[in-house]
Amino acid sequence: MGDLWLEDFEVGRVFTTRGCTLSEAQILDFAWQHDPQPFHIDREAAATGPYGGLIASGFQTLLVAFRLFYQEKVVNAASMGSPGMDELRWLAPVRPDDTIRVRAEVLEVRPSRSRPDRGTAVIAYAVLNQRDETVMTFKVTHILRRRPEGTAERPVAT
Amino acid sequence: MGDLWLEDFEVGRVFTTRGCTLSEAQILDFAWQHDPQPFHIDREAAATGPYGGLIASGFQTLLVAFRLFYQEKVVNAASMGSPGMDELRWLAPVRPDDTIRVRAEVLEVRPSRSRPDRGTAVIAYAVLNQRDETVMTFKVTHILRRRPEGTAERPVAT
Repeated sequence: MGDLWLEDFEVGRVFTTRGCTLSEAQILDFAWQHDPQPFHIDREAAATGPYGGLIASGFQTLLVAFRLFYQEKVVNAASMGSPGMDELRWLAPVRPDDTIRVRAEVLEVRPSRSRPDRGTAVIAYAVLNQRDETVMTFKVTHILRRRPEGTAERPVAT
Repeated sequence: MGDLWLEDFEVGRVFTTRGCTLSEAQILDFAWQHDPQPFHIDREAAATGPYGGLIASGFQTLLVAFRLFYQEKVVNAASMGSPGMDELRWLAPVRPDDTIRVRAEVLEVRPSRSRPDRGTAVIAYAVLNQRDETVMTFKVTHILRRRPEGTAERPVAT
Protein backbone atom coordinates (compact mmCIF):
# COMPACT_ATOMS: atom_id res chain seq x y z
CA MET A 1 0.00 0.00 0.00
CA GLY A 2 1.30 3.45 -0.91
CA ASP A 3 1.39 6.27 1.61
CA LEU A 4 -1.99 7.66 2.55
CA TRP A 5 -2.35 11.30 3.60
CA LEU A 6 -5.13 13.07 5.46
CA GLU A 7 -6.96 13.66 2.17
CA ASP A 8 -7.18 9.89 1.59
CA PHE A 9 -9.22 9.33 4.74
CA GLU A 10 -12.73 9.93 3.50
CA VAL A 11 -15.60 9.57 5.95
CA GLY A 12 -17.06 6.10 5.57
CA ARG A 13 -13.94 4.54 4.08
CA VAL A 14 -13.35 1.08 5.58
CA PHE A 15 -10.06 -0.75 6.09
CA THR A 16 -9.80 -4.38 7.12
CA THR A 17 -6.80 -6.31 8.41
CA ARG A 18 -5.54 -9.86 8.37
CA GLY A 19 -5.95 -11.95 11.50
CA CYS A 20 -3.84 -12.96 14.47
CA THR A 21 -4.29 -16.06 16.66
CA LEU A 22 -3.69 -15.65 20.38
CA SER A 23 -2.33 -18.78 22.02
CA GLU A 24 -2.76 -19.53 25.69
CA ALA A 25 0.99 -19.05 26.15
CA GLN A 26 0.84 -15.58 24.63
CA ILE A 27 -2.11 -14.64 26.81
CA LEU A 28 -0.26 -15.81 29.92
CA ASP A 29 2.99 -14.07 28.92
CA PHE A 30 1.38 -10.74 28.16
CA ALA A 31 -0.70 -10.75 31.31
CA TRP A 32 2.22 -11.78 33.50
CA GLN A 33 4.03 -8.63 32.45
CA HIS A 34 1.21 -6.15 32.08
CA ASP A 35 -2.07 -7.26 33.63
CA PRO A 36 -1.56 -10.08 36.17
CA GLN A 37 -5.16 -10.56 37.25
CA PRO A 38 -6.10 -14.17 38.10
CA PHE A 39 -8.44 -14.58 35.13
CA HIS A 40 -5.52 -13.68 32.81
CA ILE A 41 -2.62 -15.59 34.40
CA ASP A 42 -4.01 -18.51 36.43
CA ARG A 43 -5.82 -21.21 34.48
CA GLU A 44 -7.08 -22.88 37.64
CA ALA A 45 -8.40 -19.73 39.29
CA ALA A 46 -9.84 -18.58 35.96
CA ALA A 47 -11.92 -21.76 35.65
CA THR A 48 -14.01 -20.75 38.64
CA GLY A 49 -13.70 -16.99 38.00
CA PRO A 50 -16.08 -14.52 36.36
CA TYR A 51 -15.33 -15.68 32.79
CA GLY A 52 -15.34 -19.46 33.35
CA GLY A 53 -11.82 -19.79 32.01
CA LEU A 54 -8.70 -17.89 31.03
CA ILE A 55 -9.23 -14.79 28.88
CA ALA A 56 -6.81 -12.38 27.24
CA SER A 57 -6.15 -9.04 28.90
CA GLY A 58 -8.25 -6.43 27.18
CA PHE A 59 -5.04 -4.43 26.78
CA GLN A 60 -3.57 -7.30 24.76
CA THR A 61 -6.61 -7.29 22.48
CA LEU A 62 -6.13 -3.55 22.05
CA LEU A 63 -2.42 -3.86 21.23
CA VAL A 64 -2.84 -6.75 18.82
CA ALA A 65 -5.60 -4.82 17.07
CA PHE A 66 -3.43 -1.73 16.83
CA ARG A 67 -0.48 -3.65 15.43
CA LEU A 68 -2.65 -5.55 12.92
CA PHE A 69 -3.92 -2.20 11.72
CA TYR A 70 -0.48 -0.60 11.73
CA GLN A 71 0.89 -3.46 9.61
CA GLU A 72 -1.58 -2.59 6.88
CA LYS A 73 0.29 0.72 6.46
CA VAL A 74 -2.94 2.69 6.38
CA VAL A 75 -1.50 5.03 8.99
CA ASN A 76 2.11 5.26 7.95
CA ALA A 77 4.17 8.22 6.71
CA ALA A 78 1.30 10.57 7.55
CA SER A 79 1.17 9.57 11.23
CA MET A 80 2.10 12.20 13.79
CA GLY A 81 0.70 10.35 16.78
CA SER A 82 -2.57 10.70 18.60
CA PRO A 83 -4.11 12.95 21.24
CA GLY A 84 -6.34 10.17 22.52
CA MET A 85 -8.89 7.37 22.37
CA ASP A 86 -12.57 7.31 23.25
CA GLU A 87 -15.37 4.90 23.99
CA LEU A 88 -13.24 1.79 24.33
CA ARG A 89 -15.51 -1.19 25.02
CA TRP A 90 -14.62 -4.76 25.84
CA LEU A 91 -17.72 -6.56 24.62
CA ALA A 92 -16.83 -10.25 24.70
CA PRO A 93 -13.90 -12.26 26.05
CA VAL A 94 -10.97 -13.29 23.86
CA ARG A 95 -10.02 -16.85 24.80
CA PRO A 96 -6.95 -18.97 24.02
CA ASP A 97 -6.76 -19.88 20.31
CA ASP A 98 -9.19 -17.19 19.23
CA THR A 99 -8.22 -15.37 16.04
CA ILE A 100 -8.93 -11.68 15.88
CA ARG A 101 -8.91 -9.15 13.08
CA VAL A 102 -9.85 -5.51 12.73
CA ARG A 103 -12.38 -3.50 10.75
CA ALA A 104 -11.69 0.22 10.83
CA GLU A 105 -13.98 2.93 9.51
CA VAL A 106 -13.22 6.62 9.08
CA LEU A 107 -15.74 8.57 11.18
CA GLU A 108 -14.60 12.15 10.95
CA VAL A 109 -11.84 14.19 9.25
CA ARG A 110 -10.81 17.73 10.13
CA PRO A 111 -7.98 19.73 8.58
CA SER A 112 -6.25 21.81 11.26
CA ARG A 113 -7.14 25.52 11.22
CA SER A 114 -3.85 26.64 12.73
CA ARG A 115 -1.44 24.19 11.05
CA PRO A 116 -1.93 23.80 7.31
CA ASP A 117 0.32 20.72 7.06
CA ARG A 118 -1.93 18.42 9.12
CA GLY A 119 -5.34 17.49 10.45
CA THR A 120 -7.11 14.85 12.49
CA ALA A 121 -9.05 11.76 11.50
CA VAL A 122 -11.22 9.83 13.94
CA ILE A 123 -11.23 6.12 13.13
CA ALA A 124 -13.71 3.68 14.69
CA TYR A 125 -12.12 0.28 15.22
CA ALA A 126 -14.00 -2.98 15.69
CA VAL A 127 -12.15 -6.15 16.67
CA LEU A 128 -13.82 -9.33 15.45
CA ASN A 129 -13.13 -12.96 16.27
CA GLN A 130 -13.28 -16.05 14.04
CA ARG A 131 -17.04 -16.30 14.59
CA ASP A 132 -17.48 -12.68 13.42
CA GLU A 133 -18.42 -11.61 16.95
CA THR A 134 -17.33 -8.10 17.86
CA VAL A 135 -15.12 -8.48 20.93
CA MET A 136 -13.96 -4.87 21.26
CA THR A 137 -14.56 -1.40 19.84
CA PHE A 138 -12.72 1.91 20.26
CA LYS A 139 -12.17 5.23 18.53
CA VAL A 140 -8.76 6.77 17.98
CA THR A 141 -8.10 10.35 16.92
CA HIS A 142 -5.09 10.27 14.61
CA ILE A 143 -2.99 13.32 13.76
CA LEU A 144 -2.16 12.96 10.07
CA ARG A 145 -0.08 14.98 7.66
CA ARG A 146 -1.76 16.36 4.56
CA ARG A 147 -0.39 15.28 1.21
CA PRO A 148 2.88 17.14 0.61
CA GLU A 149 2.80 19.37 -2.46
CA GLY A 150 4.08 17.61 -5.53
CA THR A 151 3.07 14.17 -4.23
CA ALA A 152 0.88 12.34 -6.70
CA GLU A 153 -2.42 10.98 -5.51
CA ARG A 154 -2.17 7.21 -5.36
CA PRO A 155 -5.50 5.37 -5.18
CA VAL A 156 -5.38 2.32 -2.96
CA ALA A 157 -7.50 -0.79 -3.13
CA THR A 158 -8.59 -2.05 0.26
CA MET B 1 -3.36 -3.35 51.76
CA GLY B 2 -6.35 -5.53 52.64
CA ASP B 3 -8.98 -6.38 50.11
CA LEU B 4 -11.21 -3.52 49.10
CA TRP B 5 -14.79 -4.13 47.97
CA LEU B 6 -17.18 -1.94 46.05
CA GLU B 7 -18.30 -0.29 49.30
CA ASP B 8 -14.73 0.92 49.93
CA PHE B 9 -14.66 2.99 46.75
CA GLU B 10 -16.17 6.25 47.93
CA VAL B 11 -16.54 9.06 45.42
CA GLY B 12 -13.57 11.39 45.82
CA ARG B 13 -11.29 8.81 47.38
CA VAL B 14 -7.77 9.13 45.96
CA PHE B 15 -5.14 6.43 45.53
CA THR B 16 -1.53 7.10 44.56
CA THR B 17 1.14 4.69 43.35
CA ARG B 18 4.88 4.40 43.45
CA GLY B 19 6.86 5.31 40.35
CA CYS B 20 8.44 3.48 37.43
CA THR B 21 11.35 4.70 35.28
CA LEU B 22 11.18 3.96 31.58
CA SER B 23 14.59 3.44 30.00
CA GLU B 24 15.27 4.01 26.34
CA ALA B 25 15.78 0.25 25.93
CA GLN B 26 12.37 -0.49 27.42
CA ILE B 27 10.72 2.08 25.16
CA LEU B 28 12.41 0.54 22.09
CA ASP B 29 11.55 -3.03 23.14
CA PHE B 30 7.90 -2.33 23.82
CA ALA B 31 7.42 -0.35 20.61
CA TRP B 32 9.22 -2.94 18.50
CA GLN B 33 6.64 -5.49 19.56
CA HIS B 34 3.50 -3.41 19.83
CA ASP B 35 3.74 0.04 18.24
CA PRO B 36 6.63 0.25 15.75
CA GLN B 37 6.18 3.83 14.62
CA PRO B 38 9.44 5.66 13.80
CA PHE B 39 9.16 8.07 16.74
CA HIS B 40 9.02 5.04 19.10
CA ILE B 41 11.66 2.71 17.59
CA ASP B 42 14.15 4.79 15.58
CA ARG B 43 16.25 7.28 17.52
CA GLU B 44 17.58 8.88 14.36
CA ALA B 45 14.22 9.32 12.63
CA ALA B 46 12.68 10.43 15.92
CA ALA B 47 15.20 13.28 16.26
CA THR B 48 13.73 15.00 13.21
CA GLY B 49 10.16 13.73 13.81
CA PRO B 50 7.14 15.41 15.36
CA TYR B 51 8.38 15.03 18.96
CA GLY B 52 12.04 16.02 18.46
CA GLY B 53 13.26 12.70 19.86
CA LEU B 54 12.23 9.24 20.88
CA ILE B 55 9.06 8.98 22.97
CA ALA B 56 7.33 6.03 24.62
CA SER B 57 4.32 4.49 22.92
CA GLY B 58 1.21 5.87 24.57
CA PHE B 59 0.11 2.26 24.99
CA GLN B 60 3.22 1.61 27.08
CA THR B 61 2.39 4.57 29.32
CA LEU B 62 -1.12 3.14 29.69
CA LEU B 63 0.14 -0.34 30.58
CA VAL B 64 2.78 0.84 33.03
CA ALA B 65 0.16 3.03 34.69
CA PHE B 66 -2.27 0.14 34.93
CA ARG B 67 0.32 -2.17 36.41
CA LEU B 68 1.56 0.43 38.90
CA PHE B 69 -2.02 0.81 40.04
CA TYR B 70 -2.67 -2.93 40.07
CA GLN B 71 0.39 -3.49 42.26
CA GLU B 72 -1.14 -1.28 44.94
CA LYS B 73 -3.84 -3.95 45.33
CA VAL B 74 -6.60 -1.35 45.33
CA VAL B 75 -8.43 -3.37 42.70
CA ASN B 76 -7.74 -6.91 43.81
CA ALA B 77 -10.07 -9.65 45.04
CA ALA B 78 -13.06 -7.51 44.11
CA SER B 79 -12.07 -7.17 40.45
CA MET B 80 -14.31 -8.81 37.87
CA GLY B 81 -12.84 -7.00 34.90
CA SER B 82 -14.00 -3.96 32.99
CA PRO B 83 -16.54 -3.10 30.31
CA GLY B 84 -14.40 -0.24 29.02
CA MET B 85 -12.37 2.95 29.16
CA ASP B 86 -13.25 6.50 28.21
CA GLU B 87 -11.65 9.82 27.46
CA LEU B 88 -8.08 8.57 27.20
CA ARG B 89 -5.79 11.55 26.51
CA TRP B 90 -2.09 11.58 25.77
CA LEU B 91 -1.19 15.07 26.97
CA ALA B 92 2.60 15.17 26.95
CA PRO B 93 5.34 12.85 25.67
CA VAL B 94 7.07 10.33 27.94
CA ARG B 95 10.75 10.33 27.07
CA PRO B 96 13.58 7.92 27.93
CA ASP B 97 14.47 8.03 31.64
CA ASP B 98 11.22 9.69 32.65
CA THR B 99 9.65 8.32 35.82
CA ILE B 100 5.90 8.04 35.91
CA ARG B 101 3.41 7.40 38.68
CA VAL B 102 -0.36 7.37 38.97
CA ARG B 103 -2.98 9.30 40.87
CA ALA B 104 -6.41 7.66 40.74
CA GLU B 105 -9.64 9.19 41.98
CA VAL B 106 -13.01 7.50 42.38
CA LEU B 107 -15.51 9.39 40.20
CA GLU B 108 -18.68 7.36 40.40
CA VAL B 109 -19.94 4.19 42.14
CA ARG B 110 -23.08 2.26 41.20
CA PRO B 111 -24.30 -0.98 42.77
CA SER B 112 -25.81 -3.22 40.10
CA ARG B 113 -29.61 -3.33 40.06
CA SER B 114 -29.82 -6.81 38.60
CA ARG B 115 -26.87 -8.48 40.35
CA PRO B 116 -26.69 -7.85 44.08
CA ASP B 117 -23.14 -9.22 44.42
CA ARG B 118 -21.47 -6.49 42.37
CA GLY B 119 -21.41 -2.96 40.99
CA THR B 120 -19.29 -0.58 38.96
CA ALA B 121 -16.83 2.11 39.95
CA VAL B 122 -15.49 4.66 37.50
CA ILE B 123 -11.94 5.66 38.37
CA ALA B 124 -10.21 8.66 36.79
CA TYR B 125 -6.50 8.01 36.34
CA ALA B 126 -3.83 10.66 35.89
CA VAL B 127 -0.27 9.69 34.99
CA LEU B 128 2.35 12.16 36.23
CA ASN B 129 6.04 12.43 35.46
CA GLN B 130 8.94 13.41 37.74
CA ARG B 131 8.20 17.09 37.13
CA ASP B 132 4.59 16.61 38.23
CA GLU B 133 3.37 17.17 34.69
CA THR B 134 0.28 15.18 33.74
CA VAL B 135 1.28 13.11 30.72
CA MET B 136 -1.90 11.05 30.35
CA THR B 137 -5.43 10.75 31.72
CA PHE B 138 -8.13 8.11 31.29
CA LYS B 139 -11.22 6.72 32.98
CA VAL B 140 -11.83 3.03 33.57
CA THR B 141 -15.13 1.48 34.58
CA HIS B 142 -14.33 -1.38 36.94
CA ILE B 143 -16.74 -4.19 37.79
CA LEU B 144 -16.23 -4.83 41.50
CA ARG B 145 -17.68 -7.34 43.92
CA ARG B 146 -19.51 -6.04 46.95
CA ARG B 147 -18.17 -7.04 50.34
CA PRO B 148 -19.13 -10.66 50.96
CA GLU B 149 -21.37 -11.14 53.98
CA GLY B 150 -19.38 -11.89 57.08
CA THR B 151 -16.31 -10.05 55.83
CA ALA B 152 -15.16 -7.43 58.32
CA GLU B 153 -14.71 -3.88 57.09
CA ARG B 154 -11.02 -3.14 57.01
CA PRO B 155 -10.15 0.54 56.79
CA VAL B 156 -7.11 1.24 54.66
CA ALA B 157 -4.66 4.11 54.85
CA THR B 158 -3.67 5.46 51.45
